[in-house]
Amino acid sequence: MDSKSLTRVRTDLALEAKNSISEDNSAIKGVRVTEEKDCKNNINIIRMDVLNRNGAQIIGRPVGTYITMEVPNLAQPDNGSHREISKALAGQLRGLITDAYHWDTRIPKILVVGLGNRDATSDALGPKVISNLFITRHIVEYMGYEEVEGAFAVTSAIVPGVMAQTGMDTCEIISAVIKKTKPDLLIVLDALAARSIRRLNSTIQITDTGIHPGSGVGNDRKAITKKTMGIPVIAIGVPTVVDASTLIYDSVKRNNVEEPIQISEEFANMYVTSKDIDAIIKRMSFTISEGINICMGFEE
Amino acid sequence: MDSKSLTRVRTDLALEAKNSISEDNSAIKGVRVTEEKDCKNNINIIRMDVLNRNGAQIIGRPVGTYITMEVPNLAQPDNGSHREISKALAGQLRGLITDAYHWDTRIPKILVVGLGNRDATSDALGPKVISNLFITRHIVEYMGYEEVEGAFAVTSAIVPGVMAQTGMDTCEIISAVIKKTKPDLLIVLDALAARSIRRLNSTIQITDTGIHPGSGVGNDRKAITKKTMGIPVIAIGVPTVVDASTLIYDSVKRNNVEEPIQISEEFANMYVTSKDIDAIIKRMSFTISEGINICMGFEE
Amino acid sequence: MDSKSLTRVRTDLALEAKNSISEDNSAIKGVRVTEEKDCKNNINIIRMDVLNRNGAQIIGRPVGTYITMEVPNLAQPDNGSHREISKALAGQLRGLITDAYHWDTRIPKILVVGLGNRDATSDALGPKVISNLFITRHIVEYMGYEEVEGAFAVTSAIVPGVMAQTGMDTCEIISAVIKKTKPDLLIVLDALAARSIRRLNSTIQITDTGIHPGSGVGNDRKAITKKTMGIPVIAIGVPTVVDASTLIYDSVKRNNVEEPIQISEEFANMYVTSKDIDAIIKRMSFTISEGINICMGFEE
Amino acid sequence: MDSKSLTRVRTDLALEAKNSISEDNSAIKGVRVTEEKDCKNNINIIRMDVLNRNGAQIIGRPVGTYITMEVPNLAQPDNGSHREISKALAGQLRGLITDAYHWDTRIPKILVVGLGNRDATSDALGPKVISNLFITRHIVEYMGYEEVEGAFAVTSAIVPGVMAQTGMDTCEIISAVIKKTKPDLLIVLDALAARSIRRLNSTIQITDTGIHPGSGVGNDRKAITKKTMGIPVIAIGVPTVVDASTLIYDSVKRNNVEEPIQISEEFANMYVTSKDIDAIIKRMSFTISEGINICMGFEE
Repeated sequence: MDSKSLTRVRTDLALEAKNSISEDNSAIKGVRVTEEKDCKNNINIIRMDVLNRNGAQIIGRPVGTYITMEVPNLAQPDNGSHREISKALAGQLRGLITDAYHWDTRIPKILVVGLGNRDATSDALGPKVISNLFITRHIVEYMGYEEVEGAFAVTSAIVPGVMAQTGMDTCEIISAVIKKTKPDLLIVLDALAARSIRRLNSTIQITDTGIHPGSGVGNDRKAITKKTMGIPVIAIGVPTVVDASTLIYDSVKRNNVEEPIQISEEFANMYVTSKDIDAIIKRMSFTISEGINICMGFEE
Repeated sequence: MDSKSLTRVRTDLALEAKNSISEDNSAIKGVRVTEEKDCKNNINIIRMDVLNRNGAQIIGRPVGTYITMEVPNLAQPDNGSHREISKALAGQLRGLITDAYHWDTRIPKILVVGLGNRDATSDALGPKVISNLFITRHIVEYMGYEEVEGAFAVTSAIVPGVMAQTGMDTCEIISAVIKKTKPDLLIVLDALAARSIRRLNSTIQITDTGIHPGSGVGNDRKAITKKTMGIPVIAIGVPTVVDASTLIYDSVKRNNVEEPIQISEEFANMYVTSKDIDAIIKRMSFTISEGINICMGFEE
Repeated sequence: MDSKSLTRVRTDLALEAKNSISEDNSAIKGVRVTEEKDCKNNINIIRMDVLNRNGAQIIGRPVGTYITMEVPNLAQPDNGSHREISKALAGQLRGLITDAYHWDTRIPKILVVGLGNRDATSDALGPKVISNLFITRHIVEYMGYEEVEGAFAVTSAIVPGVMAQTGMDTCEIISAVIKKTKPDLLIVLDALAARSIRRLNSTIQITDTGIHPGSGVGNDRKAITKKTMGIPVIAIGVPTVVDASTLIYDSVKRNNVEEPIQISEEFANMYVTSKDIDAIIKRMSFTISEGINICMGFEE
Repeated sequence: MDSKSLTRVRTDLALEAKNSISEDNSAIKGVRVTEEKDCKNNINIIRMDVLNRNGAQIIGRPVGTYITMEVPNLAQPDNGSHREISKALAGQLRGLITDAYHWDTRIPKILVVGLGNRDATSDALGPKVISNLFITRHIVEYMGYEEVEGAFAVTSAIVPGVMAQTGMDTCEIISAVIKKTKPDLLIVLDALAARSIRRLNSTIQITDTGIHPGSGVGNDRKAITKKTMGIPVIAIGVPTVVDASTLIYDSVKRNNVEEPIQISEEFANMYVTSKDIDAIIKRMSFTISEGINICMGFEE
């Protein structure tokens, strides 16, 4: 048999997972949702706190904070709005970092990881963000902290590659580098899969729960979390694809088919993406890298 | 209203267009189909001749020859089978060129065009093939024909880019270059859209009818044919994507929905592609470029 | 014999050519040099007008205007100074265009050409600038001039590639596209060769004399000028390399060798470039593309 | 003062280091040189064994084996000779691995590291070789050794990036990954600096002594050796650049200047490379990756 009944709809967005249970923001016990609109800049920020095991079980995501930035201009050519998106991202990111890592006198060391395959356009968001970051760890190591005075953090970065190219689990590489270089906090960047095409390239998810199995465009990931890495993990993701199976499932359902749906196995390695994904990824990765640079205190 | 009834299923493969009318190879008047299997190398070659206006109207393609090479190993890592695919392609291509261009003493000048967007992985097949071709026109111009003695043709090549990047119709650029450099024949390379996922990255279509509106991953193409260009045009294409709307239409139909299907406008700019399309494009473009090099007499 | 006496030192910078004759700005008849310093932004603009045949013969450059922008920050990471460089470039470019093309009611159509090999880092400046330009010709063609109201020009662009890849002279491709799409003016971008390492990546040359044989990193260029193209040609260039032979010649001379110098033929295809040329090209191409976008009225 | 007297000529090739002391292959005590010519394939293999501390001190390289493959066709378009180069490399590599690692029943795990900056053409050799390797460690981890039966080794690979992009010493990243994934042997790939332009892109150096400070195009390297990594290290390198200072020094000397030579500091970050380095790197990296694949038993 070369087909299967689809039992679980795939999405990496916690907000979509919640909305597939209930669109009502106050209906789920153990989940608190607050919303903040910046109409001038067309930025909508939805903060979802999964407060306890009950909330976690219902929406199928770990306890923690999930910030969903709805930014319709993210994929559009920059008409001045991207700077505002970068600044809003910087603010949200700084909030989550401050909550996750309580330092005293020394500024923290942050390792930024660009997940994904740099050779596959829709999966290259992480590697492309890295290439525009302001990196300072080596400067501090060789010349001292005074060289980065006023910065929010000391930064290092790595693009670990994907398992088919390295033969190693991505989380093996990351945890090895953490053990050796001892950062205080991890930021992980990744291209995500959404359930709805409407979410593609117009949503940024920031969470302090890290990355979980099955996330991302590839399927070779193990969890990258505080538990597995030993330090706080903030994940930043943008959905760039929809799973082909998920798309078909939803489309068939929307056409009121009642019977169980058969989806061919041949869709297993297929995804749906935008026709001008190359230009979109270029713009989005720049805007996100600028957000991180601003958060780190390297730009204004 | 943000949805539409899909009236036409999209495919760039003439064989899929024919099969959607009738799977029976002898059933359509004015269309002749012959098949040739190379079991040893797992290559299946289906030649479809659209003989007259009747055949053309029924399957919705111009009169001409459509060669469909079914090559399941094309996207696989090379275990020795790619050389055989290159050779088979070279043979088919040489046949079509010989039919299209009747020369006498001088070897023909052939311009090869790599259509598509080099920055979008699934559309980059054409540009990537070009970068591996053996180019000789400038050698002949500066040093004479004796430098390419024994070659089948003198070659030049161009990657015109896509309209969003150039502001020009691709066919404007090509016809301008033809007028200036006076090649005898045009070979056009393009990534195609298939109807069936099963066809992706495992089919090569070679045709003497050129490229027609609506073909290719982008939608900014005008016809590139003998009529518009003034010289014979051979098109080589490999399907790398399926239109999202087509996929949904077929999936819903397959689940026996009877009512007219509503497909949201948001799918208009979306396509379905393989998760490891980057590595696949790299392999396929090399194999096809080698096929062209062999055809031109630069390799064996 | 595998060596030669170097008779001519190679530079694409007109200012270097002049200075090798005389460092005194008022000493050469038929050449007028004026200088303008913007100390705040660390930009020094030297305008050299070659007024007549006498001046042209002495410094070995055609009659016309050569603007040399000395911008030490050009290759540095952007600390805010790049916006000022873009604006200064926009102003100079607009001045030269206004002098070269006298229009009446309709805004001009400008074709921008990115010369060079996109696969060779130090030669990729032109292609990389193109990929960040705001292109509008197709919008105007399909939707009318009102879509670009307020713009300074309508833009199209092409990356013709290099002769080894296309088999065609670059100027053949450009003149073909001009004939077909009828722009009013040409802007040509190119990576240049300087004589002095001190000039690398810190100088922008803008000239209304176009591109002349022997210029650029490659050596396969014919002239791209108003005479050969039929429309005014503005060339923008940045030196990214020094010819290996030139470097050796100067170094030996500086060490007071009196005899004629023998420079081995093996240096003929060699050039000197900066170790971090990749990051430098990325920054410079962005700053220059922004300068062109500002000049065209698409940004402020 | 902005210049210095050059006291040491830079080369990463042990054979050039030896030849600068004595061209006579039997003249240096503690160094044994043997040569093997394959005239048919135009491959010349020079094996230099630095036998003891005396030899090491004289030529300034650690005790160990240095194999220099002189392969004039390496940078040329493939006319069939590249397969022979790959096979010869595979043979030499297998010899060094067999000497360095004495296993019993289990096949060894080998980690291949692609040093250098993938964004700088002449430094991208290592990263480009990696992208064409056959990688099997993850297959063995998930499905067992029987999946790679007949292979010479189990392979994993990493492209660590350069310090300016990661903020980390390259050797920190490598030793971290070694500690975590426990390979038995390391193969390190790197673009090298030669003293002579004649050596560029036509020499492969294979050594069991690893990588030493100051090697490579960049200057941010610490030693990667059996001592620092804890496992045998085989380094494969191809010279793609000549240091600008070294070039000038040699050129001035060749013109019989007697006085001490002053070389300006501005040359410190400059190197000399070939004009078509992009196409050369592409060819060479493919040929070398095929050599490694053959050595590992994945091809013939």
